[in-house]
Amino acid sequence: MVEVTKGRTPGAGALFQLLRDGRPRTRADLAAETGQARSTIAGRIDALLASGLVTPAGEASSTGGRPPTTFAFDPAVRVVLGVDLGATHARLAVTDLASRVLATLDAPLAIADGPAAVLDWVVDAGLKLLGEAGRAHDDLVGVGVGLPGPVEHGTGHPNNPPIMPGWDDADVPGLLGARFGAPVLVDNDVNIMALGEHRAAWPEVADLLFVKVGTGIGAGIIADGLLMRGAQGAAGDLGHVALPGAEDVPCRCGNLGCLEAVASAQAVADRLRATGAATPRGADVVELVRAGDLAAAQAVRQAGRDLGAVLAACVSLLNPSTIVIGGVLAEAGEHLVAGIREVVYRRSLPLATQHLRIVTARTGADAAVLGASAMAIDHVLSPAAVEARLGA
Amino acid sequence: MVEVTKGRTPGAGALFQLLRDGRPRTRADLAAETGQARSTIAGRIDALLASGLVTPAGEASSTGGRPPTTFAFDPAVRVVLGVDLGATHARLAVTDLASRVLATLDAPLAIADGPAAVLDWVVDAGLKLLGEAGRAHDDLVGVGVGLPGPVEHGTGHPNNPPIMPGWDDADVPGLLGARFGAPVLVDNDVNIMALGEHRAAWPEVADLLFVKVGTGIGAGIIADGLLMRGAQGAAGDLGHVALPGAEDVPCRCGNLGCLEAVASAQAVADRLRATGAATPRGADVVELVRAGDLAAAQAVRQAGRDLGAVLAACVSLLNPSTIVIGGVLAEAGEHLVAGIREVVYRRSLPLATQHLRIVTARTGADAAVLGASAMAIDHVLSPAAVEARLGA
Repeated sequence: MVEVTKGRTPGAGALFQLLRDGRPRTRADLAAETGQARSTIAGRIDALLASGLVTPAGEASSTGGRPPTTFAFDPAVRVVLGVDLGATHARLAVTDLASRVLATLDAPLAIADGPAAVLDWVVDAGLKLLGEAGRAHDDLVGVGVGLPGPVEHGTGHPNNPPIMPGWDDADVPGLLGARFGAPVLVDNDVNIMALGEHRAAWPEVADLLFVKVGTGIGAGIIADGLLMRGAQGAAGDLGHVALPGAEDVPCRCGNLGCLEAVASAQAVADRLRATGAATPRGADVVELVRAGDLAAAQAVRQAGRDLGAVLAACVSLLNPSTIVIGGVLAEAGEHLVAGIREVVYRRSLPLATQHLRIVTARTGADAAVLGASAMAIDHVLSPAAVEARLGA
Repeated sequence: MVEVTKGRTPGAGALFQLLRDGRPRTRADLAAETGQARSTIAGRIDALLASGLVTPAGEASSTGGRPPTTFAFDPAVRVVLGVDLGATHARLAVTDLASRVLATLDAPLAIADGPAAVLDWVVDAGLKLLGEAGRAHDDLVGVGVGLPGPVEHGTGHPNNPPIMPGWDDADVPGLLGARFGAPVLVDNDVNIMALGEHRAAWPEVADLLFVKVGTGIGAGIIADGLLMRGAQGAAGDLGHVALPGAEDVPCRCGNLGCLEAVASAQAVADRLRATGAATPRGADVVELVRAGDLAAAQAVRQAGRDLGAVLAACVSLLNPSTIVIGGVLAEAGEHLVAGIREVVYRRSLPLATQHLRIVTARTGADAAVLGASAMAIDHVLSPAAVEARLGA
């Protein structure tokens, strides 16, 4: 026998999952769809109406008598905040629960200033943006945060992040959650970008590998429609896989021959600069390629081949149907993807490549905030979270 | 409004999922647990009783009046057949729906004889084994088959399998299903072994990588508790990943420098034989190591290092908490695993290796039939399959 705790409504969270598709239903529709008693449905609908997640959606057509009321999920009634923190830049977005962007904010930000200063700024900027979106603090039901380093999935704490001094094991969910008064989900920036790109541009693809080629290199894995995080949330860490033939190149991680030390946007910029080009940053490489510089185009294509050598192993291991290349170096046109394709199609088995497409990202600078927002929404609308709200 | 098709019982499959844990429940327990009306529960229990999957399990204690009947899933009432086909050998097992092995059979078998001859033999041997287990043909509700080559997951057809002449695109589920009168699920042998080892030995581990080091090399990936197959069912194909430094070694796949060409049991046997050792097969290497042969032990340890170079990339990409090494070369004691550990712990980032264990398989020769049986059971007891049986 299941004991029903007073003041809670077990099963309302599961009922809500039906309504998430947005289609209006009467109480009778829901009773027929679930096999649950009318009285049970009525109690759960009352709880969901009180939560604001579900609203009356007009009257159903009727063959006689008073037409019954329909109910539907109203994604506009609450909002989440998506936060994308990079090494030197932040982007925030307020979205509703259907991921519609209501307001965004971009600002320079030094992650190296440490968690106290950075998270203070995030709270101030987030609340201000909420106001700009015309929403009250009470409307905020969740926050998603992407950080530029490894994050332990179970705790949401950064784990030895190389470019985030002072952040190791910082309680980001606790610190932000106390200030925002809402649950805070944290993941690394690449997982967040993979989620954003997948939801916004490739929702029908079950097996997708998103690869960010920026200052560093990382990947987010979508397997069977879901983000795959691995045991500690470290899955997708491609940047420090050994690249065959690069055994003499030192990497900032302390190892030799890592992919990131050879094929990241920064590595390409550094190599071109050594030959006299004005390329302090990866973005400068993209500028040169766009201006028709042959050496820059050749360097990007070679970076593509080097990426391809590691991605061929990923194709054999994961058998994705789509590889999406994002990050600043993906903006250098077809040169990068052409180099990747060249090696992947040579090195992988036919079964894994016969339907494989390799493309550049579509969501651009929005990938991370869209993904952070999606992560927060997934949490907030889960059966357990909906019931916790109802019982609160 | 959901229309209820005559003769079917929608929702009975979902109700059955509750009962799969084996705990006896009364109709009132089930009504309380699901929020469904007593009359709904009664109809679904009747359908499940008629199917044989659920049986009366005695009376509940009562505070007065006639004690109510409890109902439970009876996993002994039906059986599945697990079939493990190798290049030169077959193993079959009849298990009940709790994976308890009722009878097994081992036999030499040449997969190269082609699908007609081999599948005929499987049907004869399977039906005979069913009789030996004391079960009627009608008790058989599903068949799981592992094949020694790539299998397209959607169709269950082999896809260009290199050591299975005549099998390309053979309709194994159709051919066997017609003869057995039960659904037939097909996957490659390594996925099947991963599933069997995971269920039998590591059910509590969410993220596990199973690596078979036999005549070939392959891996099965368990991510978040589920077998990850990829877009075409080709995930885990480690054998043809390029091994750094082995660019001059030809592989039977037509490429150069594949892991399998250097570190498989057969590759080690071939290299030792070239130095005069009597090692026509991988199993002979294991014999030599057990007899204390230094060259054989060194060769196995080097194969471990070579595997480690590719597994380090897998650790970065997948972040498993457990890597299980199976296949014949894993029987050479700690030499293989020691070589793997040496390279993986050197080449992977701390977050991914801090809680990583690398061990040898526990299920031995039973891994594949246990996995094939588990695959069939998962299918047979799924909500959709249970309802299809009820409606039949």
